Amino acid sequence: MPLDTPKDPAIAAKAELDQQNFALANCIRALTIDAVNAANSGHPGAPMGMADAATVLFRNHLKFDAKNPDWPDRDRFVLSNGHGSMLLYSLLHLTGYEDMTLEQVKNFRQWGAITAGHPEYGHAKGVETTTGPLGQGIATAVGMALAERALAGEFGSDLVDHNTYVMLGDGCLQEGIGQEAISLAGHLGLGKLIALYDDNSITIDGPTSISFSEDVPARLAACGWHVQTCDGHDAKALDKAIAAAKAETGKPSLIAMKTIIGFGSPNRAGTYSVHGAPLGKDEAALTKEALGWTAEPFQIPDDLAAEWRAIGTRGSEAREAWEARLAASPRGEALTQRLSGNLPEGYDAAVAAACDALFADPKKAATRKASQMALEALTPAVPAMIGGSADLTGSNLTRVKAVDSQYTKDAPGRYIGYGVREFGMAAAMNGINLHGGFIAYGGTFLVFSDYARNAIRLSALMGVGTIYVMTHDSIGLGEDGPTHQPIEHLASLRAIPGLTVLRPADTVETLEAWDIAIRNRNVPSLLALSRQDVPQLRLEAGSENLTAKGAYVIRQFGESRDVTLIATGTEVAIAVQAAEALHADGMSVAVVSMPSWELFDAQPEAYRAEILGSAPRIAVEAAGKFGWTRYVASEDDVIGMTGFGASAPIDRLYSEFGITADAIAARAKKLTDR
Amino acid sequence: MPLDTPKDPAIAAKAELDQQNFALANCIRALTIDAVNAANSGHPGAPMGMADAATVLFRNHLKFDAKNPDWPDRDRFVLSNGHGSMLLYSLLHLTGYEDMTLEQVKNFRQWGAITAGHPEYGHAKGVETTTGPLGQGIATAVGMALAERALAGEFGSDLVDHNTYVMLGDGCLQEGIGQEAISLAGHLGLGKLIALYDDNSITIDGPTSISFSEDVPARLAACGWHVQTCDGHDAKALDKAIAAAKAETGKPSLIAMKTIIGFGSPNRAGTYSVHGAPLGKDEAALTKEALGWTAEPFQIPDDLAAEWRAIGTRGSEAREAWEARLAASPRGEALTQRLSGNLPEGYDAAVAAACDALFADPKKAATRKASQMALEALTPAVPAMIGGSADLTGSNLTRVKAVDSQYTKDAPGRYIGYGVREFGMAAAMNGINLHGGFIAYGGTFLVFSDYARNAIRLSALMGVGTIYVMTHDSIGLGEDGPTHQPIEHLASLRAIPGLTVLRPADTVETLEAWDIAIRNRNVPSLLALSRQDVPQLRLEAGSENLTAKGAYVIRQFGESRDVTLIATGTEVAIAVQAAEALHADGMSVAVVSMPSWELFDAQPEAYRAEILGSAPRIAVEAAGKFGWTRYVASEDDVIGMTGFGASAPIDRLYSEFGITADAIAARAKKLTDR
Repeated sequence: MPLDTPKDPAIAAKAELDQQNFALANCIRALTIDAVNAANSGHPGAPMGMADAATVLFRNHLKFDAKNPDWPDRDRFVLSNGHGSMLLYSLLHLTGYEDMTLEQVKNFRQWGAITAGHPEYGHAKGVETTTGPLGQGIATAVGMALAERALAGEFGSDLVDHNTYVMLGDGCLQEGIGQEAISLAGHLGLGKLIALYDDNSITIDGPTSISFSEDVPARLAACGWHVQTCDGHDAKALDKAIAAAKAETGKPSLIAMKTIIGFGSPNRAGTYSVHGAPLGKDEAALTKEALGWTAEPFQIPDDLAAEWRAIGTRGSEAREAWEARLAASPRGEALTQRLSGNLPEGYDAAVAAACDALFADPKKAATRKASQMALEALTPAVPAMIGGSADLTGSNLTRVKAVDSQYTKDAPGRYIGYGVREFGMAAAMNGINLHGGFIAYGGTFLVFSDYARNAIRLSALMGVGTIYVMTHDSIGLGEDGPTHQPIEHLASLRAIPGLTVLRPADTVETLEAWDIAIRNRNVPSLLALSRQDVPQLRLEAGSENLTAKGAYVIRQFGESRDVTLIATGTEVAIAVQAAEALHADGMSVAVVSMPSWELFDAQPEAYRAEILGSAPRIAVEAAGKFGWTRYVASEDDVIGMTGFGASAPIDRLYSEFGITADAIAARAKKLTDR
Repeated sequence: MPLDTPKDPAIAAKAELDQQNFALANCIRALTIDAVNAANSGHPGAPMGMADAATVLFRNHLKFDAKNPDWPDRDRFVLSNGHGSMLLYSLLHLTGYEDMTLEQVKNFRQWGAITAGHPEYGHAKGVETTTGPLGQGIATAVGMALAERALAGEFGSDLVDHNTYVMLGDGCLQEGIGQEAISLAGHLGLGKLIALYDDNSITIDGPTSISFSEDVPARLAACGWHVQTCDGHDAKALDKAIAAAKAETGKPSLIAMKTIIGFGSPNRAGTYSVHGAPLGKDEAALTKEALGWTAEPFQIPDDLAAEWRAIGTRGSEAREAWEARLAASPRGEALTQRLSGNLPEGYDAAVAAACDALFADPKKAATRKASQMALEALTPAVPAMIGGSADLTGSNLTRVKAVDSQYTKDAPGRYIGYGVREFGMAAAMNGINLHGGFIAYGGTFLVFSDYARNAIRLSALMGVGTIYVMTHDSIGLGEDGPTHQPIEHLASLRAIPGLTVLRPADTVETLEAWDIAIRNRNVPSLLALSRQDVPQLRLEAGSENLTAKGAYVIRQFGESRDVTLIATGTEVAIAVQAAEALHADGMSVAVVSMPSWELFDAQPEAYRAEILGSAPRIAVEAAGKFGWTRYVASEDDVIGMTGFGASAPIDRLYSEFGITADAIAARAKKLTDR
């Protein structure tokens, strides 16, 4: 090795435990120092502290093949403390991921580079999920591990058998979602989930002791985890601990690694000053000296580079063997189909049949019930679908015959009791979808989308087709009152870029919404569904999915248009009533059902102009008015809510809050001077 | 007693443990059964299961005086599993809270009643906080306990010495925020927080074993709690456990009570069917028979009613003694002033002086820095202010000299390291403010308002003046990338009814925003603050708080108006640049700074019309465009973001995303056909 002996005796002592691992880890540390310095921005401390453990993991354990990053049976690696992104980028570069060139590393945190400040899914290969918002990495990893077990249960462990590794820091363990994930993983006995905890005693504000003093190993043991502690700079101890974690297959494993943040930095190691700021030129030089690192910036000595590249190809044999097994297996073709993400043959027919059935025998039903009917009709044709609820199964109506098998510690199933853990559920669903082989959907009340919100955002940011089933979507929830009645939620969700919000009006639109959601594998969908019954408004048979247009004229009264009523969900029926009354009074009225703003806005301008028309417009939605001025002239033209709801029976609420056909008609007359 | 012996031998055995407590508890069970049946809606199971424990608590321990519900030194009681609201309403009615009449109990869940489906703060006296969204009750209670210790530290335990009791269920323990609260309470050693866990093994979907199998006592012990377990129907055991919890003053206490949900119901006790549905007439009759309850619906036998009313006055002596101590204490007047919620003398002068200083010596500064300057200036005049951050102190700049004392296990202080626990922080701040004596503010990044969102909503729903300091409020955050750059957040927060969102443009507006927030004790405020520097735009001295008008003309170029540029926060300076360029090209331009939509919309119509003007309008904000059509004709007239951000240095981001003076000027010219 062209490396000096570390100048610092404490570092030298650690190095001696495994010289080669130490030297390989220094490659990560050096790249981190250089990239963060070049960007003059970033978080060097965590990568420097976790480098030894990451080296052990990639060198001895992680099953991967850098030249085939999408190999389905690879182990998953999630860096939950995503601010340590240079750890991951260094590993990808060193092991030979083709897109992770030295140029990309040098352009860390620059416009257009795949080396964003936090790992972004879809930018670089080997980034299994976007991380940075703390706690979500571990929760997403729980979903991956959950999916692995379900897929293995279905296709056999000869074809599906990989671990999910997560590195996480104090922040992930402080965030509530971290606990939700930990609790769920322990409950489900996800034995192939292995978490390495970077226990460095430092947080952004200073020592963790400012805010964090619990016994983490004891907490996780209480949650059913297999727990070990070890020195995070002792390669041999780490290797043993990871091996033991792999051997424990009935419980998820935590390895609490005592580490020194910014390991190697003479003046900053072990302090919060190395957490989120570059070392700077001088300290970088001192650090490299202390580590015995003599190479130029961004240069990796040839022998170490070669060894890292060998690590990157270590899994190629396993991959080839897997491919051979896949080719030879009677289940191979089916698995390949599943992993392709394409919908199976028979799906289109199932949609058509379900649609025909509704036209043949129209149903009055709550849209949450319509959702269950759609699921009953479609899930038999889509074995990839895996459902669940955050402890509101009977309310969300997410459980149907084809997904009736409960996922338990003893065996995987197609229905997951996520518990009262909305955020954990949402992130886990992202993980299931990212893993491949499944389409995850899960339910809660729309108001509790708040709890899950940042995971919904990450679905959209990543482009992952998670399906959120959000019932009890308005004051129509009734007696549970304002804490449970969504008001601002539709607007808040519509404001998220890249999320398709669907609020269907009846059984037909609900079926169509499900069809859209199931097909949308790269866009998350959120279905806002009612507690209360609505009539089936769509009665004319037709094969076109009108919901996919976002909005369409569902009723036309009279020849021309004096006014256009735009409504969504349960309020479409009320708008139709109002239109009937107005028409009886001699007005021509078009009622536009607008189940999805996003889908409507994506239509050609001519279509949008035709639907919106040039007559005065009124919007009707039992929710806050915020945002509706996109389609109407003023919020005065929105029949909706101006404040929070109240606890009372539904009819009283609609009447007291003035969301009635009378109120719509009165506004229409005022607007048209009648 | 006019009660029969319970028909059910298992019930009779429990009853024999303490006949009187059992009989008193049956009053709660009977009222619950009757009210839920009358509403034909509600959750009878939890109140029936917790009735024995609640009776022990109110009868023997809780320090309160029903006729003086606002007595500041009362113990606080929080029902974190708020769906069990009939437990609380029964207790309030039975102990003689004047507003909780039998009529109100009979009108449970009806329009206009104070007996909402979930306990709503401000509806009924004795409801210390709104609960229902699970996990938030315990987190809010942590804030109350934290405030109690801080206030006692300041004014002495002769004047401030009360416990905070929380009842909570499995849901509160599954929600991540529950763990955040538990971890924080353990860390801070909140010894006067006592939680009673309704361990009934039942959740909405069925047995908790579907989704929850951890060792809760072990988890809480790992988090530094004092933990006991006991039979939740054994009054004597409960009494001992509560006494022991009170005796332990260095740690928060958990009493895990093994209970039977729907206790007394022959066919539904111990099952999920009693969780959220009325018993119905037949099962109600069977249950009353099983319990030995012979009174008519809604009737309480006289002797039991009298005993309950005596319980309600049990604390009156303690209250009188406290009032005497307060009157006699040299700190009494100061405490009374603090508890009044009025700002101290000297506050107005501090604001004026800070303002004068800015006009005398204008500063270019990030608005987060301006926020720190405002805090430095104002907090010495407001000893009620208690600050903190979710582990981003150095970024949020929430710590200043006057609040520099760290709140630790050993001693309360004015600065709280909430840890990486945004949701827990927000709920705790609500609790601090609800407790009285303090104005709580706390910081995180604006993007992580997502994590705290439902607690922000509860601040607004309750009308509690929590102050959210949300920095790094746009793509101006730069290199950390899209996970850390808020896009939809301003819109999402503006959509919440009753929340004042403030995005100040410079040092002066930031000071004004703080003044508004500090004065707003019944409305939550959220300050969106920049990472990057902005020039001071307000240079003309004047005593009027222009930010309080929500929007105003900050610059006028030319005599008339060809176009109006409306901007917020850091984009006001860019709009001014654009206006200068347009003016140089011969146009008349007004630049409107709009720090708060809510405050602007509350202005008289004439003022709004004057500010908005009749010329074409362009809005400028480095955020999603959603909602801006309230003020401009179309989202095409918004210079803002259409998707997520990116990781790069700030200047590059503003330029790539087209949020520039050039882009504004180009749009203005297009809009005015130049």
